Amino acid sequence: MTSASGLDLSLYLGKARSLVEEALSRYIPEVGEGEASACPSRLSSAMRYSLLAGGKRLRPVLCLMAAEACGGDAEAAMPAACAVEMIHTYSLIHDDLPAMDDDDLRRGRPTCHKAYDEATAILAGDGLLTLAFEIVARDVRPISAGLECIRVLAESAGPCGMVGGQMADLQAEDRAEGEGSLAELEAIHRRKTGALLRAPLRMGGLIAEASEASLSALDRYGRAVGLAFQIVDDLLDVEGDETKLGKRVGKDDGLGKWTYPRFLGIEGSRVRARQLADEAVAAIQPFGERGQWLRSLALALLERDR
Amino acid sequence: MTSASGLDLSLYLGKARSLVEEALSRYIPEVGEGEASACPSRLSSAMRYSLLAGGKRLRPVLCLMAAEACGGDAEAAMPAACAVEMIHTYSLIHDDLPAMDDDDLRRGRPTCHKAYDEATAILAGDGLLTLAFEIVARDVRPISAGLECIRVLAESAGPCGMVGGQMADLQAEDRAEGEGSLAELEAIHRRKTGALLRAPLRMGGLIAEASEASLSALDRYGRAVGLAFQIVDDLLDVEGDETKLGKRVGKDDGLGKWTYPRFLGIEGSRVRARQLADEAVAAIQPFGERGQWLRSLALALLERDR
Repeated sequence: MTSASGLDLSLYLGKARSLVEEALSRYIPEVGEGEASACPSRLSSAMRYSLLAGGKRLRPVLCLMAAEACGGDAEAAMPAACAVEMIHTYSLIHDDLPAMDDDDLRRGRPTCHKAYDEATAILAGDGLLTLAFEIVARDVRPISAGLECIRVLAESAGPCGMVGGQMADLQAEDRAEGEGSLAELEAIHRRKTGALLRAPLRMGGLIAEASEASLSALDRYGRAVGLAFQIVDDLLDVEGDETKLGKRVGKDDGLGKWTYPRFLGIEGSRVRARQLADEAVAAIQPFGERGQWLRSLALALLERDR
Repeated sequence: MTSASGLDLSLYLGKARSLVEEALSRYIPEVGEGEASACPSRLSSAMRYSLLAGGKRLRPVLCLMAAEACGGDAEAAMPAACAVEMIHTYSLIHDDLPAMDDDDLRRGRPTCHKAYDEATAILAGDGLLTLAFEIVARDVRPISAGLECIRVLAESAGPCGMVGGQMADLQAEDRAEGEGSLAELEAIHRRKTGALLRAPLRMGGLIAEASEASLSALDRYGRAVGLAFQIVDDLLDVEGDETKLGKRVGKDDGLGKWTYPRFLGIEGSRVRARQLADEAVAAIQPFGERGQWLRSLALALLERDR
């Protein structure tokens, strides 16, 4: 990323990430052992361990950018941005468990159940999911937007969204190689990762009290960016650098998972990702100059190396 | 329970439970395999398996009773009642996992991870927790009550409530026998089970737009009933009938868990439960005739055998 706008985006993202991380840190109760009504310190420690482990902070950044694109205030969108990152983190903790994907490494560090233990990891995930809703209910204003945000977040993360996508993904692993279609793959991704990428965009729009037309433009953007993001993820798993990624590469293939390269080939996957990024950019055309960060981000996602 | 009021209570509870179960059944998406945007059928099946496995439905019943005690409508409280039962059920599914309490039997049937598998059980729990918030956000009116209910539910179920209580309970197991005090035991129960017994009472009150004084009376009632309920639970574990309970008895002792009988003896535990039930009844005195079901329930809990 050497272009002027690429450089601007890096600065924007650096600043946004550090604001998000400060807010996340404030949200996790850090209290002394022995206070009977407080969060046990082992639990808050495990929640912080996973939540503050770095990462791209893509979902909260999308929330802040969407609020700004709709003429709203990024600060007002921060509680919703933190909530979606907590839900993302809980899903990673549970997905990494031995009974699920059984991963030892996440973002270059031991996964939560390796650093603590399985019971603590299950509870840390449960705690983050629950806290996310508490934060939106308490801190998002106006209250009509707060309630609508909770609905969006719960639908995206729930049995017909992310949790359903994870279930469908596990079931797909059990099927014979060669089975399955690109349409099925996309249906899994739309739920497993896509839903929770669209949610922060809609929440940002809701908090900025955006029009239906703007909310629907954000949704089209999110749908395209979500799939593009997943294709690049699959490509990185084939070609990526384990050190930069902080996780094992090639494991999707080993587990017999369906991936874009398997269906479209490597070059075909690249072309599809590019098309989707262009679709995303077209969707937010109506936002004009205020949509600049969303636009830069969609294009930058194609070039990410971790 | 042979007294006239005991008989009335049985009738009330029977009717309330069947209304709750109908509503719960409607809330879990039941859809055909292959609909890409729907809940995978294995997931909804596992959620239904645990959610519709019977049980006392104590938490939803408390929510309906509280709404009525405050002059509100039980039907309006049904979404919140279902939400709290979903959260209770999710906590049972996760607590039963091998990494947690490792139970094979629940309500006389195989636990969720035994009937399905561990990954499905983790996801079914996650799905129920998330769906609970979706339902409150979508169906509780007025919206100010909906938002406040979500806050109450999340605080009660979260890291400083139920999830924190479960963590503290697991940590207590690791401590040497003889350590620990009755105060510590009560602090664990207040979070692990008490918080989620108080929440439906407050939600019922909020939905009925009750005064602060009424909400606070419900809270005192819930606090006393919650501890009484736990004491009776511990007594049943020592003396109960495995067939009626549908789970192993004596296991708390085997795991080195702290229980009331351990601290107070069996007779002392019975006396304490009775005192707490009396406190609960006193707290709701101001509701007069409308508080009759809450009153009967507090007294009946002392005599339960499962």
